[in-house]
Amino acid sequence: MSRPSKIGLRPALKERLSKKNNLSELNEFGFSVEKTDSQARAGFIETAHGTIRTPVFMPVGTQATVKTLSPEELDQIGVEVVLANTYHLYLRPGHELIRQAGGLQKFMGWHRPVLTDSGGYQVFSLLDLNQIKEEGVTFKSHLDGSCHLFTPERVIEIQSALGADIIMAFDECVPYPAEEDYVRLACERTVRWAERCRTSWKSLSQDQAHPWPQALFGVVQGGMYKHLRQWSAKRTVELDFPGYSIGGLSVGEPKALMYEMLDHAIEYLPPERPRYLMGVGHPEDMVEAVRRGVDMFDCVVPTRYGRNGTVFTSRGRLVVKNAPFADDFQPLDEECDCYACRNFSRAYIRHLIHSGEILGIKLTSYHNVYFMVRLVQSMRQAIVEGKFDRWADKFYNRYDSGGEIS
Amino acid sequence: MSRPSKIGLRPALKERLSKKNNLSELNEFGFSVEKTDSQARAGFIETAHGTIRTPVFMPVGTQATVKTLSPEELDQIGVEVVLANTYHLYLRPGHELIRQAGGLQKFMGWHRPVLTDSGGYQVFSLLDLNQIKEEGVTFKSHLDGSCHLFTPERVIEIQSALGADIIMAFDECVPYPAEEDYVRLACERTVRWAERCRTSWKSLSQDQAHPWPQALFGVVQGGMYKHLRQWSAKRTVELDFPGYSIGGLSVGEPKALMYEMLDHAIEYLPPERPRYLMGVGHPEDMVEAVRRGVDMFDCVVPTRYGRNGTVFTSRGRLVVKNAPFADDFQPLDEECDCYACRNFSRAYIRHLIHSGEILGIKLTSYHNVYFMVRLVQSMRQAIVEGKFDRWADKFYNRYDSGGEIS
Repeated sequence: MSRPSKIGLRPALKERLSKKNNLSELNEFGFSVEKTDSQARAGFIETAHGTIRTPVFMPVGTQATVKTLSPEELDQIGVEVVLANTYHLYLRPGHELIRQAGGLQKFMGWHRPVLTDSGGYQVFSLLDLNQIKEEGVTFKSHLDGSCHLFTPERVIEIQSALGADIIMAFDECVPYPAEEDYVRLACERTVRWAERCRTSWKSLSQDQAHPWPQALFGVVQGGMYKHLRQWSAKRTVELDFPGYSIGGLSVGEPKALMYEMLDHAIEYLPPERPRYLMGVGHPEDMVEAVRRGVDMFDCVVPTRYGRNGTVFTSRGRLVVKNAPFADDFQPLDEECDCYACRNFSRAYIRHLIHSGEILGIKLTSYHNVYFMVRLVQSMRQAIVEGKFDRWADKFYNRYDSGGEIS
Repeated sequence: MSRPSKIGLRPALKERLSKKNNLSELNEFGFSVEKTDSQARAGFIETAHGTIRTPVFMPVGTQATVKTLSPEELDQIGVEVVLANTYHLYLRPGHELIRQAGGLQKFMGWHRPVLTDSGGYQVFSLLDLNQIKEEGVTFKSHLDGSCHLFTPERVIEIQSALGADIIMAFDECVPYPAEEDYVRLACERTVRWAERCRTSWKSLSQDQAHPWPQALFGVVQGGMYKHLRQWSAKRTVELDFPGYSIGGLSVGEPKALMYEMLDHAIEYLPPERPRYLMGVGHPEDMVEAVRRGVDMFDCVVPTRYGRNGTVFTSRGRLVVKNAPFADDFQPLDEECDCYACRNFSRAYIRHLIHSGEILGIKLTSYHNVYFMVRLVQSMRQAIVEGKFDRWADKFYNRYDSGGEIS
């Protein structure tokens, strides 16, 4: 077992801020590995808002809410940390409003840990860019077309106001496929920006918006080029972050290529820090990434698929809105014990979706998030028992990752 | 205290059906008045799916779901009975499917009492009619334009398949304003249809779709004509129903006229049977109706207003989606202890609504249904304590029924 690595506030500041906020204590950020099984790890992340057991799946609360679900429901499901999007919250309702509200946790009524992304993915992948310069990126708001500038310093300032327990360095996410020269330039800039983020984060800890510590993660990029992944990992680790994210994967490349890139990045990441594979994912991708030593995941898949009437089950995906389920009185997944599966039939949920009733997509979203959370919990248990490979074989024997049940 | 009036199955049938469905007992339908305070009454309705305390507010689950809320949330709120719409469920998913599912309660995952309307309101008020004949009404589906015929017998058959604990006779709901001659004809036909419904219901009890008893309520009509209201009440009561509904009010008439019509109908209703004012209401309307001896209410107002970003508070209505609430960190209603008010601010809920996030209208709907349920509970308590008038004065002193808080 490795020793926890701690990142925290100076003791005097911590005491003052604890008192001011009536918190009995402000836990420092830390990570510890409880058990490894080959490369797979079961661990704990400590934050001021509570402990996260890893491997962990983080549902995405883009606009400070996990679509269709209340914080109470996330709690029932067993969610331990939620991801929120810096880009979206910066534009609406604005990070200053969230700072005034007492941070994202209080604003959302969710009192467990929160992680924010850097906005890099949104400004690079989803928007028409005005300009990428060394200073930062100017972009147009998708809401009103207004112009904005994200720099590494600005992104840290915004994330400080939002107050998440874990925050991300500003990175450039490249599309797939992309030319090597382009990826190298983006990758080098991401490292320079990581350094600026780190400097900004260090200086902000003297004057931060909220009393609890925020752990800054560096982001490894490098597209689909082995040597760039390796280079990016090494340079980022030299900057010594409390945790490391792996970005720019699951962007359309073949799965085998993704796993290969993952291997090349992880090789250079220190075992005593948490590893976060951003934007992943699908059940089979999480299994393969945990096998390789990844600790954290986030993805919109469970809620997005849920809203489209597709659910994940122990046998594969099921499009419950389809006609064959109109008079099917079985639960979504007969092996699932979630609220949706204990109380409602496929026929009822299909009726709700066809009638445009919100409860329908709430139940599919609930079930899908529950499925992902139980999946990582089950992997964790297998790691603790030293049986990960056997667990994975059993999982694949039953789960059809390609097809759909109908 | 009046003696409960019981409507039930023959003992042998009851025992057979109880065993078949593994129910420890199948309560008969009954109503008892616990306490009266002038004309206001606090009572109990007994059904096979549980006891309902009256006065009661029934949220509307048009398509077998109270919009945005799960059965678990309805339970948390303290909802004791839900209304569902025969017209909508007949068209989609079809009453036969719900019969196969084991009735509405099982289909919806809601194990407390359910009431269904007769579909009369929808076919008369909302649709282009093909033809009204003595036999029944032909109408076109709002979903696909297909033609259907509702007769009194058919409506009882559909409601038998749906399996609600309380069902309604098929009535003709007239618009406001309407000529006296037209109202008289509709009113007379409603009584003839009530008789056919009663005959059909009595014969169905030998061969019903579900094992529990269903109590059929007669519906008093009569538009805005005193003598027709009186005539309709007397004739309907002569048919001896387990309960009586008052329909065709709150259709656009002045409030004073509605209360006057209510008085003329209630005068002829027997005190030992429950009285249900259909489609009402707004808080002030429920207060005035309880004062006059009404026991049951249903209305889409809390959920419809909730979806439009308006909430009911102890001081009046509040349009939380409006700009002044953007940085208002107070709860929706500081005197409310519902889940929404205990955990979220106006600013957050406004943000959710502006961002198109479902949680926003879920929280406003939740709060509004909670407000109505607490309102009737509070009236019930005042009646039990013999202080209804004082309670009502206090309520009006604080609640601004006309204006909106901003």
